[in-house]
Amino acid sequence: MITIALPKGALLEDSISIFKKAGLNFSDALLENNRSLTIESECKRAKALLVRNGDVPVYVSYGQADLGIVGYDVLQESELKVAKLLDLEFGGCHMSLAVKNTSNYSKPTDLPANCKVASKFTKTARAYFDDLNIPVEIVHLTGSVELGPITGMAEAIVDLVATGKTLKENGLSKIDDLFYSTARLIANPLSIRLDSNPLRDVILSIESFKGT
Amino acid sequence: MITIALPKGALLEDSISIFKKAGLNFSDALLENNRSLTIESECKRAKALLVRNGDVPVYVSYGQADLGIVGYDVLQESELKVAKLLDLEFGGCHMSLAVKNTSNYSKPTDLPANCKVASKFTKTARAYFDDLNIPVEIVHLTGSVELGPITGMAEAIVDLVATGKTLKENGLSKIDDLFYSTARLIANPLSIRLDSNPLRDVILSIESFKGT
Repeated sequence: MITIALPKGALLEDSISIFKKAGLNFSDALLENNRSLTIESECKRAKALLVRNGDVPVYVSYGQADLGIVGYDVLQESELKVAKLLDLEFGGCHMSLAVKNTSNYSKPTDLPANCKVASKFTKTARAYFDDLNIPVEIVHLTGSVELGPITGMAEAIVDLVATGKTLKENGLSKIDDLFYSTARLIANPLSIRLDSNPLRDVILSIESFKGT
Repeated sequence: MITIALPKGALLEDSISIFKKAGLNFSDALLENNRSLTIESECKRAKALLVRNGDVPVYVSYGQADLGIVGYDVLQESELKVAKLLDLEFGGCHMSLAVKNTSNYSKPTDLPANCKVASKFTKTARAYFDDLNIPVEIVHLTGSVELGPITGMAEAIVDLVATGKTLKENGLSKIDDLFYSTARLIANPLSIRLDSNPLRDVILSIESFKGT
């Protein structure tokens, strides 16, 4: 039986729709009263694990799931080994650098040396500033990163921006994009290698339907 | 003006009630339609930042908040410097080690060497097993840790247990308690040192009302 790690939250509906086109129906996961964390497909050929976006690479890497769907932003932050198979081209958003509207910073190099930058994505933020050779202190926050500049704790934030509404509501503006993140299909490297056919069929099917 | 970091979620209502008794009313934060992350007290003497439980020590440590309320579990995981003032004695839950009901493990030393233990609290779990000199691999999950043993990824979990309902629903049983966690009042060390009187008054007031 194939096991698939699906991300709860914003990517779930499109993820289920992709697998449905490939013949694996996990629509029960979308029922409002669903509390189960594991869902069997209608055809009984596959099982889905409903996990947090950030936990998808864990289940795939350790082999508890053969396949998974996860945002590129999470993959960039994770150091776990997974096979990156396909860009599924949905769930698009930018990983961006933003500052207060009232600040005088219009590009990353305007930031004062050793200033603080708040982010949920500390490895991503660290790599970005290291590449630019700008010494900053990365402060790890787990939620509402926009409070960093509002309270004066941080000069800037590195965060995911979809519509830009949250930035606007909090008086913040983007001054750079680190990358564009979309949902990705990932696999356990060993599962792929040992697969006779079932996994390959699902992957090829998703590849053919992708974006239609 | 005093700034106070309050934890969103399970500890919020009791935290607001504690400060209300001390003369600082942030009840607006509990209104269903409240979306604001900062709330001024009725008396205008203080401001509350509504942040995630895990971010409270960050705002207090960096001095953006003078005081904060946070679970002892979060303090144990955090390496930031804050002054630990009072045990507020609410929000009690155990940090526990749990395994599948169907396993043969009834104490931590029954766990096989180098087995995997899933947890959101990786530093806490690591310190616990190091103290017992049991070599295990700690796997970091961000949510639904109970899926670890269910999927066979992990032999055990280290997680917060309040009523035990989640464990029961997922066929898991507690085999040890690491510690009992309650809400704590913390402060920025410098704020305390530089305080003339306003902070001290609030702290003394909370101390006198505590548990009543």
